[in-house]
Amino acid sequence: MTTAELYNSYKEQMRRIADIKYASALLQWDQETYLPSKAAPIRGQQIATLSELSHQLFTDEKLGALLKELSERKELHEDEQKNVSLTLEDYSKNKKYSTEFVRKMSEQTNKTFHAWIEARKQDSFSVFEKDLAALIELKKQETDILGYEKHCYNALLNEFEKGCTVELLDKTFSGLLPSLKELLDKITAKEQVDNSFLKQNFPKQDQWSWGMHLINKLNFDFNAGRQDISEHPFTINFSSTDVRITTRVDENNLSNMTWSCIHETGHALYEQGLPETEYGLPLGEAASLSIHESQSRLWENNVGRSLAFWRYYLPELQQYFPKQLGNVSLHTFYKGINKVEPSLIRTEADELTYHFHVFIRYELEKKLIEGSIQAKDIPAFWNEHYQKYLGVSPANDKTGCLQDIHWSHGSFGYFPTYSLGSFYAAQLFSFVKRNIVDLDTQLEHGKTESLLTWLKKNVYRYGRKYTSEELCTKITGKPLDIKEFMDYLLQKYTKIYIL
Amino acid sequence: MTTAELYNSYKEQMRRIADIKYASALLQWDQETYLPSKAAPIRGQQIATLSELSHQLFTDEKLGALLKELSERKELHEDEQKNVSLTLEDYSKNKKYSTEFVRKMSEQTNKTFHAWIEARKQDSFSVFEKDLAALIELKKQETDILGYEKHCYNALLNEFEKGCTVELLDKTFSGLLPSLKELLDKITAKEQVDNSFLKQNFPKQDQWSWGMHLINKLNFDFNAGRQDISEHPFTINFSSTDVRITTRVDENNLSNMTWSCIHETGHALYEQGLPETEYGLPLGEAASLSIHESQSRLWENNVGRSLAFWRYYLPELQQYFPKQLGNVSLHTFYKGINKVEPSLIRTEADELTYHFHVFIRYELEKKLIEGSIQAKDIPAFWNEHYQKYLGVSPANDKTGCLQDIHWSHGSFGYFPTYSLGSFYAAQLFSFVKRNIVDLDTQLEHGKTESLLTWLKKNVYRYGRKYTSEELCTKITGKPLDIKEFMDYLLQKYTKIYIL
Repeated sequence: MTTAELYNSYKEQMRRIADIKYASALLQWDQETYLPSKAAPIRGQQIATLSELSHQLFTDEKLGALLKELSERKELHEDEQKNVSLTLEDYSKNKKYSTEFVRKMSEQTNKTFHAWIEARKQDSFSVFEKDLAALIELKKQETDILGYEKHCYNALLNEFEKGCTVELLDKTFSGLLPSLKELLDKITAKEQVDNSFLKQNFPKQDQWSWGMHLINKLNFDFNAGRQDISEHPFTINFSSTDVRITTRVDENNLSNMTWSCIHETGHALYEQGLPETEYGLPLGEAASLSIHESQSRLWENNVGRSLAFWRYYLPELQQYFPKQLGNVSLHTFYKGINKVEPSLIRTEADELTYHFHVFIRYELEKKLIEGSIQAKDIPAFWNEHYQKYLGVSPANDKTGCLQDIHWSHGSFGYFPTYSLGSFYAAQLFSFVKRNIVDLDTQLEHGKTESLLTWLKKNVYRYGRKYTSEELCTKITGKPLDIKEFMDYLLQKYTKIYIL
Repeated sequence: MTTAELYNSYKEQMRRIADIKYASALLQWDQETYLPSKAAPIRGQQIATLSELSHQLFTDEKLGALLKELSERKELHEDEQKNVSLTLEDYSKNKKYSTEFVRKMSEQTNKTFHAWIEARKQDSFSVFEKDLAALIELKKQETDILGYEKHCYNALLNEFEKGCTVELLDKTFSGLLPSLKELLDKITAKEQVDNSFLKQNFPKQDQWSWGMHLINKLNFDFNAGRQDISEHPFTINFSSTDVRITTRVDENNLSNMTWSCIHETGHALYEQGLPETEYGLPLGEAASLSIHESQSRLWENNVGRSLAFWRYYLPELQQYFPKQLGNVSLHTFYKGINKVEPSLIRTEADELTYHFHVFIRYELEKKLIEGSIQAKDIPAFWNEHYQKYLGVSPANDKTGCLQDIHWSHGSFGYFPTYSLGSFYAAQLFSFVKRNIVDLDTQLEHGKTESLLTWLKKNVYRYGRKYTSEELCTKITGKPLDIKEFMDYLLQKYTKIYIL
């Protein structure tokens, strides 16, 4: 076969595998948005069957041989070569898993998800514990399947962020946390800002309308996506022409809906901006989770909590809620939405204390996977560490260790990418601001198109071509530099709190 | 292997195939309810991949060998034997199709569906014509693949109703139509009833609330299903614990929403009542399309257009629409909802003229499949025959030959089951009324539970164990007897029109 024929055959096989994976993703989306309750067990089984099938296809020896053959062909274009080498990497990793293990994991994940839903309803960790323990057991097995150096948790970290290790993260957090603590103490010593205006009654339907308006203005393409309601906001895609986000509405707090909409839109713009022609191939996928998160955070925080942004949007928001916000001035609003305050819920945390949440979860996961603590110890560990690092204690499990969906999805090793995302976002945004010199003025006029165009050109269009570090270096001229993040925080809070 | 082991292996394989088929069904449901427009082509491809996969699994020679082996084991229980023999039948039929043909059909069906959506938007048959012609060509090929005796259309009729033939249908329609025409003429000669109260403005949200209320009262299980909005109402299921119905709302006509809700609920109660333990097996599926339709029609017409039913429900309906319906008396309402009047839209037709719609479509399909007319001839044929049989002419294609979704799904040979469904419904309902002697009194009090229990016991729980004819005979003591349907119409309209 000619190289072109070989490459087409590879593309065709990857397309089929993607069709099945995305079908499975739709079943999951549906499970978290519209599934009737009695269907939960069968849905889990249906998803498991599709996982098993796509795994079977993606570990087919013939595909392996094709990939090896292709990887030796020199006539491939650079991007084609990259697709092949990344696919070969994925293939080799997938070969480590038995189909039986994939099915078991999928079924256990599904059970654990429903246990989590039920546990939240009953506000009781013990309802979740048994299934979570079984899942952690599978995750431990997975570390052996994947293999690792030094710490077993590295195997899982590497799944979400290539090259990420306990060593690196320990070093990063131990460098960062003292600076964050110092800044937090300075802020705490100052007069506190008021954000009570966010905690009035905001009717559901009005919040929904506002959120949809905002998303639309931020250029989320509703012909290539939609928004729905779910227990926990998320972004999921079934192609770059079908990217779906979800949100949740708290009638007594405007923050949840507003910034979850902006956050998920950040993810979605990335997915909608990936090259459609690379469907099913690495170059049609996001670079990494941390870069994904850098996109959501950049919009949520660097843009969506900036003074310039709200200079334009506050008057619009006030039209939706004249009674509640008509008298709130821009500066009161800006300070309020950036209030720093240790709190219980990660997704509602400010940009500073957020990273303590991630750190606690990271510590906890590390210990669960290495086996030094067990599932049953989670609530105690959780509460103790929240007290220690943030000085707060959850009154119940729902606002404590049951708050996040990730474990119930089997995502252990995922949380550090949230912090990395913030760090990358700060570095990227500071670079963008130097490149689009009137960006602030544009934001003040509600214009985000040139930012989006810049991101499309510099981030989205490459797909997985570059690793996080490579992409960061390519764009900003240097690898991840936490100092950029600290500078961003210092600058922001110095003005707000007059430090 | 022991027989029990063999049977378990068979069940397990069928479960896997069902998982894939139902995943594909979810992709289709999503396509007709929530899919963003740009995703249409890729969604078609994703569905085609799943069709191809389930076809591959269901035509696996090893499954065939297993089925043959099992069919010779005498130790199986009666129901197990039935499952195996029906599966072997399905298997043998599926073996006739090549995987390539299945994929082609799936892709063409998808294209045709989107062409239909677009053609309706533009109100132009010509937008639909090319894809429909390609689909008809595939359907002709399918008749050769399946094989047939006498008329090629028999091959397709048999797909939807085992044993159904042109010969039988020609005989049935030529027996029925003159009687219907005679009754229609008698009615036309009488003073006409007024149904203008149904054609006022009924706000969408209020109609939706009313529909949801009604469905709920009819014991649709919302923990095992849901209702959404789509272009064309339908029922679809992904297990008996997840049965979804859709409806559409016309602000200027209350009928569409109300009776589509009852109709689809009739389908859904059947699906929700199928034995969950038989998931993926014939005994977990509906007996046939005509029996399925008998269930929807029984609720829609025999129950849902009866005086007793509305004696209870009219006051409830009036609470939703006091302004529009507060002054409408029960008898005016009852007569109005049973008004006989030749019209353009099948789904809105009365119980008498409905069958002319089916007959015209049947004649048309027969000619399209035998090749005596072509896709391009459809609008002319359609309009001419509507004039001839019903004395009406559509002003445009949207209310003419573009009105139904079925062709765009590749469903040729389907429509006759609609008429058969009405006939079976009449026969079943007349039998039920003799068995639940106070059924009218129960309906007058809004009680439909004992009717539902009766249907569960006599229809739902058997799945595909009996053919339509067998089931009808088992229940009513005789095969389908069209006279029961004519008697039902005569009795009803004699009272309403004082014939």
